[in-house]
Amino acid sequence: MTPAQTRNFKRLLNPRHIAFIGGADASVALNEARRIGFSGQFWPVNPRRDNLLGIPCYAKLADLPEAPDAAYVAIPSHAAVEAVAELNRMGGGGVVCYSAGFKETGGAGVDLEKALVEAAGDMALIGPNCYGVINYPDRVALWPFAHGGGSPGYGAAIITQSGMLSSDITMCQRSLPLTYMVSAGNQAALGLEDFVEVLSEDPRVRAIGLHIEGISSIPRFEEVAIKAARLEKPIVALRTGTSAIGGSLTVSHTGSLSGENELFYALFERLNIIAVQSPVQFLETLKFLTVAGAPKGRRLAGFTCSGGGATMLADRAESIGVDFPAFDGDLAVRLKELLPPVATVSNPLDYTTPIWGQPEYTRPVFEAAIGTDRVDAALLVQDYPAEGLDESKQSYLNDAQAFIAATRTSAIPSAICSTFPENIDRETRDFLIAEGIAPIQGIHEALEAIDGATAWALGLPSVPDKPRQEPLPLPAGAVVTVLDEAEGKRRLRDAGLPVPSGFCVEGYEVHSAAERIGYPVVLKMMGPMLQHKSDVGAVALHLENGQDLSNALIQMRKEVAACNPEAVTDRFLVEAMGPKPVAEVIVGIRRDAQFGLALTLGSGGVLTELIGDVVTLLLPCLRTDLERSLEKLKVHRIIQGYRGGRKGSVDAIVTTLETLCSFALDHADTITEIEVNPLFVYEDRVVIVDVLMQSIDGGR
Amino acid sequence: MTPAQTRNFKRLLNPRHIAFIGGADASVALNEARRIGFSGQFWPVNPRRDNLLGIPCYAKLADLPEAPDAAYVAIPSHAAVEAVAELNRMGGGGVVCYSAGFKETGGAGVDLEKALVEAAGDMALIGPNCYGVINYPDRVALWPFAHGGGSPGYGAAIITQSGMLSSDITMCQRSLPLTYMVSAGNQAALGLEDFVEVLSEDPRVRAIGLHIEGISSIPRFEEVAIKAARLEKPIVALRTGTSAIGGSLTVSHTGSLSGENELFYALFERLNIIAVQSPVQFLETLKFLTVAGAPKGRRLAGFTCSGGGATMLADRAESIGVDFPAFDGDLAVRLKELLPPVATVSNPLDYTTPIWGQPEYTRPVFEAAIGTDRVDAALLVQDYPAEGLDESKQSYLNDAQAFIAATRTSAIPSAICSTFPENIDRETRDFLIAEGIAPIQGIHEALEAIDGATAWALGLPSVPDKPRQEPLPLPAGAVVTVLDEAEGKRRLRDAGLPVPSGFCVEGYEVHSAAERIGYPVVLKMMGPMLQHKSDVGAVALHLENGQDLSNALIQMRKEVAACNPEAVTDRFLVEAMGPKPVAEVIVGIRRDAQFGLALTLGSGGVLTELIGDVVTLLLPCLRTDLERSLEKLKVHRIIQGYRGGRKGSVDAIVTTLETLCSFALDHADTITEIEVNPLFVYEDRVVIVDVLMQSIDGGR
Repeated sequence: MTPAQTRNFKRLLNPRHIAFIGGADASVALNEARRIGFSGQFWPVNPRRDNLLGIPCYAKLADLPEAPDAAYVAIPSHAAVEAVAELNRMGGGGVVCYSAGFKETGGAGVDLEKALVEAAGDMALIGPNCYGVINYPDRVALWPFAHGGGSPGYGAAIITQSGMLSSDITMCQRSLPLTYMVSAGNQAALGLEDFVEVLSEDPRVRAIGLHIEGISSIPRFEEVAIKAARLEKPIVALRTGTSAIGGSLTVSHTGSLSGENELFYALFERLNIIAVQSPVQFLETLKFLTVAGAPKGRRLAGFTCSGGGATMLADRAESIGVDFPAFDGDLAVRLKELLPPVATVSNPLDYTTPIWGQPEYTRPVFEAAIGTDRVDAALLVQDYPAEGLDESKQSYLNDAQAFIAATRTSAIPSAICSTFPENIDRETRDFLIAEGIAPIQGIHEALEAIDGATAWALGLPSVPDKPRQEPLPLPAGAVVTVLDEAEGKRRLRDAGLPVPSGFCVEGYEVHSAAERIGYPVVLKMMGPMLQHKSDVGAVALHLENGQDLSNALIQMRKEVAACNPEAVTDRFLVEAMGPKPVAEVIVGIRRDAQFGLALTLGSGGVLTELIGDVVTLLLPCLRTDLERSLEKLKVHRIIQGYRGGRKGSVDAIVTTLETLCSFALDHADTITEIEVNPLFVYEDRVVIVDVLMQSIDGGR
Repeated sequence: MTPAQTRNFKRLLNPRHIAFIGGADASVALNEARRIGFSGQFWPVNPRRDNLLGIPCYAKLADLPEAPDAAYVAIPSHAAVEAVAELNRMGGGGVVCYSAGFKETGGAGVDLEKALVEAAGDMALIGPNCYGVINYPDRVALWPFAHGGGSPGYGAAIITQSGMLSSDITMCQRSLPLTYMVSAGNQAALGLEDFVEVLSEDPRVRAIGLHIEGISSIPRFEEVAIKAARLEKPIVALRTGTSAIGGSLTVSHTGSLSGENELFYALFERLNIIAVQSPVQFLETLKFLTVAGAPKGRRLAGFTCSGGGATMLADRAESIGVDFPAFDGDLAVRLKELLPPVATVSNPLDYTTPIWGQPEYTRPVFEAAIGTDRVDAALLVQDYPAEGLDESKQSYLNDAQAFIAATRTSAIPSAICSTFPENIDRETRDFLIAEGIAPIQGIHEALEAIDGATAWALGLPSVPDKPRQEPLPLPAGAVVTVLDEAEGKRRLRDAGLPVPSGFCVEGYEVHSAAERIGYPVVLKMMGPMLQHKSDVGAVALHLENGQDLSNALIQMRKEVAACNPEAVTDRFLVEAMGPKPVAEVIVGIRRDAQFGLALTLGSGGVLTELIGDVVTLLLPCLRTDLERSLEKLKVHRIIQGYRGGRKGSVDAIVTTLETLCSFALDHADTITEIEVNPLFVYEDRVVIVDVLMQSIDGGR
């Protein structure tokens, strides 16, 4: 984004005049600008119409009083390119190109899109094939359909890669405070990242919502996400297209364990972006962040006036990262005094109907339970009556006001949520927002929004300082080959990594090799067609003596030949046989053309894929990232000494991972994939038992 | 439920007259009956008031013209008991006892509740401490708060164990067709099961929704669930309180692997009850079932006018049991002709904006794609504009009508869903319901509702013929002891189960025992304090010869003594050491005081608890149930020959499970728990390698 583009984008966001170029579609856009209360000048441009919605048309762009700050272009694609070129010559600010028929149609459309970008020059071009942009607080709409949504003067900036989704979001009945809505379309010139960069600077933007189908440049995305983090603007991401993972089997395990989806989530985690799984959670999380802010810890106080509600809170909290600390000790005594006899002191707390709607009783309960520095956030469950049935509404509002007063004393982010999303009416939502309390629609949605916001606040200090580099492309014509285990291990040993002592020898030398190493030993046949050695009988373990070794050699040749005679070789790796480890871990590092190097860590052994106990992170990373990733795995419990068993050395694992990552980064120009499976973990060390390495320098 | 109670419950559901006994609360109930349009007689009873809401009060029950068919009792608990007794003497029909202060308060309240039940006699008593009942199609309300909800003449019958939840449900803005709402309260006389039994007979009830915190009698619950299944009334269950599982460690693994929650889900599965995880899913699943019915198979056709929507459908479908079969072959050709050039033929299908809102184009697309017998259900995603912004609404309705026409031709259950729950307005919902199309609020909710409804239809033929028996209580004073492995295995061998050949001998006899069995052998120390033998060194494997055995014996005495000198014994089990199995399975059968015998099946070995690969089912069960359960496990993939590995004998596993179940059922009066861990699975057989059995006849 050039400085001129940035300036022009700001002109587009808050223009003095908008040119509406086109007929019926331009009329709708003009109407939407009028409806939102745009206070600048409306300049319809159409050679064949007298007026659009009563405003006289200019016949051509050249007739305009001056270059427009913003233009809404809704004419056929070729004409659109011409119009954009002329706007550029005139010194126009920004263009929303609603017109379709560009890259998305393939063929000639791809070239036409290039022409469009060229025509736009340093103007800010949104689209083509997009809905456009709405600036709520400044009352500007460049939008082709009826839109809803509003702003209390601050809110979320939402950027989507689906026009229909952005329209659906504006139609929501959720009172989400909005600042900007941008439908990015084909992103020919300006993309997701550019919008994040500029909009995160607006002090009215309290959080950013991204709907992501794909990212065009990871380093640029990292750059703007880091900028948003520095400005303490949380980003919430809804990714769609998760089922598009290529399901084909690859040569490695980790390839099938971790697809594009895992890389996206690794990227989000690295950048402290809150990932959500549904469009509803997207909006509710943004609502909590913009209205209430982010809690500084996981301790939540929950209140309901129903045993069922308290149970539902507790049920859901158990499965996510929210903690309801017990109300115990003096506090329990105090609450017992304040509550009716039928109530049970617990967190979440059912304060019971005898005091319902009576703030003189409920407020002291809320105040005592929330206390000072006891909890990091507070949540009250209330289902307001449907419209027209609101005799009891005042009782609910009484408790809401008592809750508001109690949270204000503690100054913690707080929400009131309904069990059913619709059971908190617009009037109540607006009242709560004015009081700084997030009105969240749904119990599960509330807990997950609080969980996400908290994770963001806790993760903020760990956001990297700078983006990673774009991965270098492999040299043209490079051929990736699989190195055999002996060669892979040689390279790892040279890098200081712990591989077993061993020799790669011909068949007649295996006995002398074994003598040098000392029994027991392992025998493995090496060969270009033996990538999954144990599946074809090319591995023999626990060989205790020469006789065992001789038998294994004969048997191995026979078994491999039975699978595939052409796979048999006379090259063998003889290695020391290690004792039984505390645990087995699998480690894969692969190079993704877009995401760069990614590390996948998981439970090792034959069951790896069945268990699905894996975590993926992007490289380079910090030692603490490796430690935290290891802790997320089930196998970590085994390493910690499961059911009274031995403990494995976390330090040795993490140190080896660090060295392996450095090795992979140092050779990122040649090595495309490294898979250690298994890494044996012992009390005081680790051993790389097998490795599969792929490189473009296999011939050396 | 006695025949008289049933008759009286029906009187209560559709009364000629209702007595409202009490003051302020009775007034609210009277008002609600009036508001719903109750056409019978209103009889307020209050000695201190002239009238309730303008209707003259009777001073006492004896003054009533005749015994009321229904009475709403909202007076203090002791007076309530007296009033109920008098109503019973008069020949009253049913009573909703809104009054609280009974069992839920403990102490004297428990006795008072007994007195209340006695007072009610054969009257139908709902509550106490409940909200009551609403009969929507007949316009009867016995309800203490403003209520919402309505009925198009048919609908769901909902029964809850939380009054507040039932109130929240009636307030929902979801147009769920309702027949009955019952808040069951303390269930002193009539309970959940009784309501299911009677309400399932009403032809207007198309589905039953149960909110379950607990069940008082499993056999009775099974009885009425089977009845509902025979009447083809689907039951949808929302269970709350799932986090209340006792987390304390028990002597067995399966105890901690499968708690009360798993038993509930096993019960639901056995009875073909659709289990849902959230209140919203509860209502949306009921809506789909009541309006659209249940699909006969998993094939779904999906339509959107947005690439984002199609992607979200595909993403979610991948993670649940819904199948979008490809539109291929001739159909693909035909659709290509019908669709605009920008469209891509796929299922789910984005039919694209160029034909949006033009039924002359969209209807042929829907008709071709749905076809005849190609799919079992159809779903269209549409987000309607917010109220006041409805210029485009007619275009949406045009496509909806085209969709309705297409689904009518194929006569398959169908739904229109919005991306955001609220983006389908009441008028549209009511229109769709009148057309037999379920208006579902949310994409995820729609797919899960269709999934649940389909699973119900497919599971209907497997519902058992009759309920299981109540488990017999153990004799008073019975003491449960843990049998040692040798004794456990002896009993299993006698029952024809495959245990390894072996002998239980004193230390000096282990060598002769090993000779008789043949090496390699296993040595295990037996003793009452040695339940987790491998944790204390009381197991030695792979003993190849007499020397190994001697060493192991010495080492074992040392290791066990090091852990606990008092645990050491001179009793040893010497067994044949089996070869490496294809897979290890864990099997637990335990006796639950409420649910009876339950079988838990899972991946075996030390990692069992970490992986959580378990399934629980209730006994007795069919061979097909065992087969189906085994197929749900990850370990099943290993048994099927994972990554080119050996295959295990499913037949041997299932036959052994059947024998083990019979054994457990035959000894249900003495054996409280059996845990086989592991069961070794081979190509042609299985072996019970270890067993932990608990019994009250341990002394014999």
